[in-house]
Amino acid sequence: MYIAMNRFQIRRGSEDEFERMWKQRDSHLSGVPGFVEFHLLRGPETESFTLFASHTVWESLAAFEAWTTSNAFRAAHAQAGQNRQLYLDRPHFEGFEVVQHLR
Amino acid sequence: MYIAMNRFQIRRGSEDEFERMWKQRDSHLSGVPGFVEFHLLRGPETESFTLFASHTVWESLAAFEAWTTSNAFRAAHAQAGQNRQLYLDRPHFEGFEVVQHLR
Repeated sequence: MYIAMNRFQIRRGSEDEFERMWKQRDSHLSGVPGFVEFHLLRGPETESFTLFASHTVWESLAAFEAWTTSNAFRAAHAQAGQNRQLYLDRPHFEGFEVVQHLR
Repeated sequence: MYIAMNRFQIRRGSEDEFERMWKQRDSHLSGVPGFVEFHLLRGPETESFTLFASHTVWESLAAFEAWTTSNAFRAAHAQAGQNRQLYLDRPHFEGFEVVQHLR
């Protein structure tokens, strides 16, 4: 299992607009091979920003990499770069392999 | 839903030992009210460390907070502080509320 995470520094006061933007978009993820689930996460606040993270679980790194070169990926990111005023900094990508899983 | 994450900077070359330590420990999480699942994640590498994250999903922030004051929490963390030589820096905690969930 592989988790692709993007971390976003969102300016204080812009959190609701950022959340609305995500809820309104079409993720183009449903039905993509190897896609397991997606979460948008709201994390800790600092004086200047609130940390958000998008968190997408894939069956494997290979499934994630295949998606990044697909038409679904291009469609999902066609609007990226809009609403720049919400962000304090560029998104920061981190990919994780699952080492251990407990239920 | 609430996700409690701890980020660990593990010295290059110590990754296998760090993973072994987690796999051998007793998490004391099974049966804790509100516990959903746990992942240990291995993330990107820099010149000096590999980023790992522990990633625990809870039904709610309240369930997580109740656990942090429980005997199970104390038992799970009784060994914390050992193996300091594996770490480049202190663990860094981040808690996240789930804003959106897609399957």
